[in-house]
Amino acid sequence: MDTTLDRLAEVLESRKTADAGTSYVAGLYREGLDAILKKMGEEAVETIIAAKGGRREAVIHETADLWFHTLIMLSHLNLKPSEVLAELDRRFGQSGLAEKAARRKQ
Amino acid sequence: MDTTLDRLAEVLESRKTADAGTSYVAGLYREGLDAILKKMGEEAVETIIAAKGGRREAVIHETADLWFHTLIMLSHLNLKPSEVLAELDRRFGQSGLAEKAARRKQ
Amino acid sequence: MDTTLDRLAEVLESRKTADAGTSYVAGLYREGLDAILKKMGEEAVETIIAAKGGRREAVIHETADLWFHTLIMLSHLNLKPSEVLAELDRRFGQSGLAEKAARRKQ
Amino acid sequence: MDTTLDRLAEVLESRKTADAGTSYVAGLYREGLDAILKKMGEEAVETIIAAKGGRREAVIHETADLWFHTLIMLSHLNLKPSEVLAELDRRFGQSGLAEKAARRKQ
Repeated sequence: MDTTLDRLAEVLESRKTADAGTSYVAGLYREGLDAILKKMGEEAVETIIAAKGGRREAVIHETADLWFHTLIMLSHLNLKPSEVLAELDRRFGQSGLAEKAARRKQ
Repeated sequence: MDTTLDRLAEVLESRKTADAGTSYVAGLYREGLDAILKKMGEEAVETIIAAKGGRREAVIHETADLWFHTLIMLSHLNLKPSEVLAELDRRFGQSGLAEKAARRKQ
Repeated sequence: MDTTLDRLAEVLESRKTADAGTSYVAGLYREGLDAILKKMGEEAVETIIAAKGGRREAVIHETADLWFHTLIMLSHLNLKPSEVLAELDRRFGQSGLAEKAARRKQ
Repeated sequence: MDTTLDRLAEVLESRKTADAGTSYVAGLYREGLDAILKKMGEEAVETIIAAKGGRREAVIHETADLWFHTLIMLSHLNLKPSEVLAELDRRFGQSGLAEKAARRKQ
């Protein structure tokens, strides 16, 4: 049970009925999938730039932004972070299978 | 304590001394930061394409790939997922502060 | 008239009837839009990494790859680079309007 | 000679001495490489989203934005679009070599 991500997912779920005028997340939901994916893509780019710049604090911040907007995307599609974590567990729970699963991807 | 991500981080740490010929992750470490960031960026693009395509199973898989390669990037830079989760907790642990922190970002 | 891009667009058009087994471009067409967009996104990421790395030769190469795959995307959608260049001309042909057009975007 | 891109490159060069308060491009130059690459990455993401959405007009607009910010990046690094076009010519000028060059990349 990944408490931070699960708890965050609950907060994001509750934002679906919040006022878009006062909640950043509610505003993103209302703008819709394209706006959410655009933000997610932006944060991925910023994470890459921060990592290339060797700025450790910035990498932490940008990765947090990237994961956060990934969670908003999942929530918007009625998916849960636990489903992603279960997929990671499935692949990497047993060390041997882990590498095989990753290699198949290439 | 986010057990899946923390456990995965430990597995990734152990791969730093693995044989690059038999381990996908060890191979990526040896190729270096640019190769890792390139894969991370690719997975972000694939997640966006899957989400736009409305393929739920694919979104789960691509998000797992995106988070997995984000973890490899963090590990390569000697950062821990717990540092990212602590940052998310700091921002979103108290619901009021959560929105403020996110809005400041814009 | 941007001769290189227009000429390239004609070559790409002719690849639509080529054998996917012998032509890289014909193979991408057959794989479809998602595969083309994935490559385009990858080249954007590689251009960013090359630019952050300060490698001038690599920036030229990766930008060429990025523009090339953008042209394949346009061709796949039956759009022409001349339409994109006309849009750029429209915005930036008159210096005053140029800045206004760009600012409106923000 | 790709007149639109070359002419645009000249306009962008002239913006290097413009007032950042009144010129969008001068503002980006002053913010520096990271800000330019961030915008370039954003436009790549928006182009992908527009293409997946099947919105032809939007694809033209977003591709124009992507190419425009690529030109700003080149200009910031004192590179010219003609160098990128020469690279494309080198690879694709002779149809036979074109495919070989592209395939080598994979």
